[in-house]
Amino acid sequence: MSEFQPIGSETIWRGEIVTAGIERFRHADGQEVTREKVWHPGAVGILAVDDECVWLTRQPREVAGLSASLEIPAGKLDVPGEAPLAAAQRELAEEIGMQAARWEELKVFYTSPGFGDERVWWYLARELSPAPDVSGEEDERIEIVAWPLARIDAAFAECEDSKSLIALLWLALARERGELSPA
Amino acid sequence: MSEFQPIGSETIWRGEIVTAGIERFRHADGQEVTREKVWHPGAVGILAVDDECVWLTRQPREVAGLSASLEIPAGKLDVPGEAPLAAAQRELAEEIGMQAARWEELKVFYTSPGFGDERVWWYLARELSPAPDVSGEEDERIEIVAWPLARIDAAFAECEDSKSLIALLWLALARERGELSPA
Repeated sequence: MSEFQPIGSETIWRGEIVTAGIERFRHADGQEVTREKVWHPGAVGILAVDDECVWLTRQPREVAGLSASLEIPAGKLDVPGEAPLAAAQRELAEEIGMQAARWEELKVFYTSPGFGDERVWWYLARELSPAPDVSGEEDERIEIVAWPLARIDAAFAECEDSKSLIALLWLALARERGELSPA
Repeated sequence: MSEFQPIGSETIWRGEIVTAGIERFRHADGQEVTREKVWHPGAVGILAVDDECVWLTRQPREVAGLSASLEIPAGKLDVPGEAPLAAAQRELAEEIGMQAARWEELKVFYTSPGFGDERVWWYLARELSPAPDVSGEEDERIEIVAWPLARIDAAFAECEDSKSLIALLWLALARERGELSPA
């Protein structure tokens, strides 16, 4: 397909989390295109599963108007120099108070590649146990939800968040195929 | 969970597609929070399936650095007053030259509800046939891909776009469960 090169960008707003502006690209055939762009530091998402439950959270997502969004544990890559796996391990402890002995990177994807560069590093976390030392600030608005694996379709029905829908469908498919090893 | 009300917003940049700025909210307990926000008009995504194939596209996604992103047919809700289903029907014709006799809304979800309000109205389109009258501009950089259903796991492996990963996993699960009726 078409190769292209960035040939310049203009930052219009640099927020704490997102940066917005325009970027120009030149395709191999010479055509130049201008794209609106939202830069984002990236994020991690964790599918944490034991023999009975998938561990989820409910939290307000104000900008989307959601008072209790059902999601997998997740967080932004907002610690300079922190690798995605380390961020995922930190977020799992901070958000649901757990650690995992086994980690597997399942996929890295873009949430909305038409206008944003946010990538999500998505992990499967197994062999869960309580995290010994949970640092970081607690957010009292995050509810921890141990969701029974037998009711995973109901989680899909409630969920409205793309990264979490991917995780829930992947989990349902792996269970359907008998591909999820015991925790 | 926590209810909240928007109590004010400031637009910092109004682009053609996205708007960026900050919005403030007051939770029921009185706490006020400030959120960076990217406003987006919303989008549609179409899972178009016949008895042998799922219909996909490959196209450059410059802002994500992808030269040939494998995705389901999709498009922005950028025609004023156009309902999501009508937009999906238009996009299916424009992007892959098809119409569908049977439409089903599968889900509406947010691509990244932590900072953006982009919603995707996601449809299943069945009983496909060539669209009689394809209007709208053609984009020569969009490649139409008739992907064999038997190789759906390879599509999941290649795909890096959240809405398309949701669609591909849902399709694999429906086929695994024998829930996808013949086209």
